[in-house]
Amino acid sequence: MDLLNLRKQIDEIDEQIVSLYEKRMDISGQVAEYKIETGKKVFDKAREEEKLRKVKALTHNEFNSHGIEELFEQIMSMSRKLQYGLLTEHGSIGKLPFIGVDRLYEEKARVVFQGADGAYSQAAMIQYFGEQVNSFHVDTFRDAMIAIDEGSADFAVLPIENSTAGIVSEIYDLLAEFENYIVGEQIIKIEHCLMALPGTKIEDIEIVYSHPQSLMQSARFLNEHNWQQISMQNNAFAAKKVAGSEDKHKAAIASEHAAKLYGLEVLAKGVNQSSTNSTRFIIVTNQKVFLKDAKKVSICFEVPHESGSLYHMLSHFIYNNLNMNRIESRPIEGRNWEYRFFIDFDGNLSDSSVKNALRGLREEARNMRILGNY
Amino acid sequence: MDLLNLRKQIDEIDEQIVSLYEKRMDISGQVAEYKIETGKKVFDKAREEEKLRKVKALTHNEFNSHGIEELFEQIMSMSRKLQYGLLTEHGSIGKLPFIGVDRLYEEKARVVFQGADGAYSQAAMIQYFGEQVNSFHVDTFRDAMIAIDEGSADFAVLPIENSTAGIVSEIYDLLAEFENYIVGEQIIKIEHCLMALPGTKIEDIEIVYSHPQSLMQSARFLNEHNWQQISMQNNAFAAKKVAGSEDKHKAAIASEHAAKLYGLEVLAKGVNQSSTNSTRFIIVTNQKVFLKDAKKVSICFEVPHESGSLYHMLSHFIYNNLNMNRIESRPIEGRNWEYRFFIDFDGNLSDSSVKNALRGLREEARNMRILGNY
Repeated sequence: MDLLNLRKQIDEIDEQIVSLYEKRMDISGQVAEYKIETGKKVFDKAREEEKLRKVKALTHNEFNSHGIEELFEQIMSMSRKLQYGLLTEHGSIGKLPFIGVDRLYEEKARVVFQGADGAYSQAAMIQYFGEQVNSFHVDTFRDAMIAIDEGSADFAVLPIENSTAGIVSEIYDLLAEFENYIVGEQIIKIEHCLMALPGTKIEDIEIVYSHPQSLMQSARFLNEHNWQQISMQNNAFAAKKVAGSEDKHKAAIASEHAAKLYGLEVLAKGVNQSSTNSTRFIIVTNQKVFLKDAKKVSICFEVPHESGSLYHMLSHFIYNNLNMNRIESRPIEGRNWEYRFFIDFDGNLSDSSVKNALRGLREEARNMRILGNY
Repeated sequence: MDLLNLRKQIDEIDEQIVSLYEKRMDISGQVAEYKIETGKKVFDKAREEEKLRKVKALTHNEFNSHGIEELFEQIMSMSRKLQYGLLTEHGSIGKLPFIGVDRLYEEKARVVFQGADGAYSQAAMIQYFGEQVNSFHVDTFRDAMIAIDEGSADFAVLPIENSTAGIVSEIYDLLAEFENYIVGEQIIKIEHCLMALPGTKIEDIEIVYSHPQSLMQSARFLNEHNWQQISMQNNAFAAKKVAGSEDKHKAAIASEHAAKLYGLEVLAKGVNQSSTNSTRFIIVTNQKVFLKDAKKVSICFEVPHESGSLYHMLSHFIYNNLNMNRIESRPIEGRNWEYRFFIDFDGNLSDSSVKNALRGLREEARNMRILGNY
């Protein structure tokens, strides 16, 4: 048997598969019309499972049985996507779980951030809401979430990810815990400075104050010195503490803005290892709203502790051509080696591919939550 | 048109698709025979791309063109998996990048861990290698990696993940940086204790020493007190420091084993929030070996900064039914918002599905590296 002949046979088979696929999609469209008339739902799990059993029974060996199962999971997901699209065109499933809005806030919105004057969170807030923003600050990320939850603030600005140090894991955990939603994001360039009382020499320093995240970001610089490193809740607190200490053995790592604010002298600039260090902040509120032109969806879900389960969850993204930008896993407290996954993907809640993927995930994942579309 | 009739038509189409699929796989098997005879490679990227162009050209609308592209990517991946399987049976691609071994180490193996006597790493090492292990300790994770790299130690024991606090991100970065390989893992239950000089009362404490990871794990307990928190390189160092200080204002958070070792009194047990807290340690060496019965593969790769690229990478796992246990992303230093992904999945390097997925990933991802099979 020569290769050319084999390939010719494959080409003929492929032509038939394409033709059958198009016929199947055409009939799927007609099923959608029937569903529009009768108000039936698109995703019928029992029927899909029965279909998989039937097509697997048609195969003649284990390898093909498995392959056919995978193939039909993909084909049925595409049929569903087509049907969601047609139903949306027809206006039949226009009601989204989030309310689409044209603008997010009025000038009188009240915004909370964690830390103190001079914090990077404050800089991110000003860049997003403008100089005239009506704001206040709290001591912890949790306090900021509570302020949003109970409505004493309309929005919170929280750091979620740094381009060098990675995720701020506490924020992920708080997003899972509270029913608050992401409505925007703001990226801020980070340049950590070493600062102390005016006139201090680097040789005088014995103790450095900063947030653990900033200490980690500056590890390479700090390892060149033998300073005691003290963890603070915020860089701005660290600068404030050094300013109030009147002690030239103390220094802080914080922003240049914080140095100015508290009258400290910058002894070294850019002490964080990466010159392209940035932090991404999210804007969070307690209402389920999204900007109508939003482009990124964030969700989280838990995965049952079974082999193959994460693989099935991710297939919903693959089969709907949804590009994931980020996947983070966080341990679920009290359950050993079980994880909650946080996924960001490109899309808008009104897209039929997004609806299709979310519908499938809601059916199969545990505690799936849409964290926001922004 | 009624629903039953539409579904009957779909069933007929599906029967034909199954039959064509089985025929295609049969011919694929014959192609494999040809490839075995001629020594041709399984994955022919140019031919797959040409095939995708051809089948897309057969469709009649954009939606179907996209669907067919996805479908044939899956079908071709399955053909490849079949061919890898047949070639392996035939012994044609028996040479794996890692050398399979029946046992990993001799009794005289030298093992390095980070920290000091009493560290959790030491406990993990003893559990894996036994009480009689020939070991030494170094100050930093990097030092341990260097010891392996230059051969002054045969194995290193390093913490990679905690069930409450999440990943130890530095270890991930070091795995990407060094050409060392994971050959085993060991899970240790973590119970942090607050300890101080004998006779100390909780009210006396003003300063607490520990590793930042342990401080975070004990945040809820620590937040009830107004103690200064000082970051140390290791819990065992913290215990040693308190023991040497003769100062009853100082305390450490470390293991009960460390308290005994340094003669400290345990003032509170289980101060970490989760009662089911465990840490997973990896065993690392500088040779590309794996135990023949290994069940988990760890890899890392970078994803080009294009929309859809992560989605394409993950499809290699989906199409080969490989279950991912973990996905972690770490920022790549100096490249803003570009990520290196670390994936653990079930499998052995000699499985044809694993070969198929790794071959596809190597073709499409950037800097794909197999970190180990264990």
